[in-house]
Amino acid sequence: MAYLTLQYSDNLVKYLDFEQICGSLRLIMLDQKIFPEAGVRVRAYPISSYSIADGHSENAFIDMILRIGVGRSEDQKLKTGEMLMMELENNVKKLLKTEYLALALEIIEIDSKFSWKTNPIHKRISAIKKYGKK
Amino acid sequence: MAYLTLQYSDNLVKYLDFEQICGSLRLIMLDQKIFPEAGVRVRAYPISSYSIADGHSENAFIDMILRIGVGRSEDQKLKTGEMLMMELENNVKKLLKTEYLALALEIIEIDSKFSWKTNPIHKRISAIKKYGKK
Amino acid sequence: MAYLTLQYSDNLVKYLDFEQICGSLRLIMLDQKIFPEAGVRVRAYPISSYSIADGHSENAFIDMILRIGVGRSEDQKLKTGEMLMMELENNVKKLLKTEYLALALEIIEIDSKFSWKTNPIHKRISAIKKYGKK
Repeated sequence: MAYLTLQYSDNLVKYLDFEQICGSLRLIMLDQKIFPEAGVRVRAYPISSYSIADGHSENAFIDMILRIGVGRSEDQKLKTGEMLMMELENNVKKLLKTEYLALALEIIEIDSKFSWKTNPIHKRISAIKKYGKK
Repeated sequence: MAYLTLQYSDNLVKYLDFEQICGSLRLIMLDQKIFPEAGVRVRAYPISSYSIADGHSENAFIDMILRIGVGRSEDQKLKTGEMLMMELENNVKKLLKTEYLALALEIIEIDSKFSWKTNPIHKRISAIKKYGKK
Repeated sequence: MAYLTLQYSDNLVKYLDFEQICGSLRLIMLDQKIFPEAGVRVRAYPISSYSIADGHSENAFIDMILRIGVGRSEDQKLKTGEMLMMELENNVKKLLKTEYLALALEIIEIDSKFSWKTNPIHKRISAIKKYGKK
């Protein structure tokens, strides 16, 4: 399991395509080769009410939380974090220059004992790999 | 306190009634007899931007996080988790068969030292139990 | 970093102005003098599907989670929590009297090792402090 959630201030929707950003971050996750494909889920949702830093109306944020199962090494987690931030920065390069946008990422581990999954997507993807695309 | 939050991909809204699902999960929570009624809050919200697993457009998810105060035994937490997953699966049985939907649940404990509550619903419910429904 | 998120049931929008509430909570955060101004972000979003306590349709909630970097003392965290709750209560005084609204706050610490920030707002605010408002 590798669940990446982005919260963003909705003044960004006129500049950014979050569907596309989710897609590019999903590919970065897969590139790490430490998360099963079927367990990777990236999602983003807008926040309409906010008050940031000095309260300037152009202030904006994208706040990411990645929740993963335990078992990855410290190095793997650090590399994943760095690659995700780098990819997000590449997607918002112009906006960062305005000095009104702040980005954040945090990686949290999920205690497998108190975590449950029901994911038939695994089965579908395995079948595609074995028998070709349906 | 027992706060259950569901995030779901918004391609599910045409198939599922999340208001009803919240209601049925609330009853499961109450059935456990380990959470005070006034402290049980179940909520669900849709996510419009996402990219899941192999990126198939029919891929969907429901991701649950249950936050509870410390003090419940391991067995109580495990049983709560299993009952919630079973109830959610019952609500989405047909969709799981399509192999495009993934479910997840995680239980997290809240550190009571850094947690605050102001909940007059307790008082209202106690009064109903004592004096009958207003 | 000091990221305060409010989730609220959307039956409250007819009574409350969450933009204004975010602003007043941001000022409380700054008043603590333990969070750098550029790192303070308060945000609120509505939840449309929910089922609360005894299921009464007027039941409502505001659920706050404050995520901060490690390094603040226990006393500082306790005072921050108390001041935020007090400010929120002041904003919803009348509604609390109806005994249908519940409030909650939880403070969580972010592991700095697995946390990343890119925040040019720091630079902009520093420049304002040094050279005056642009």
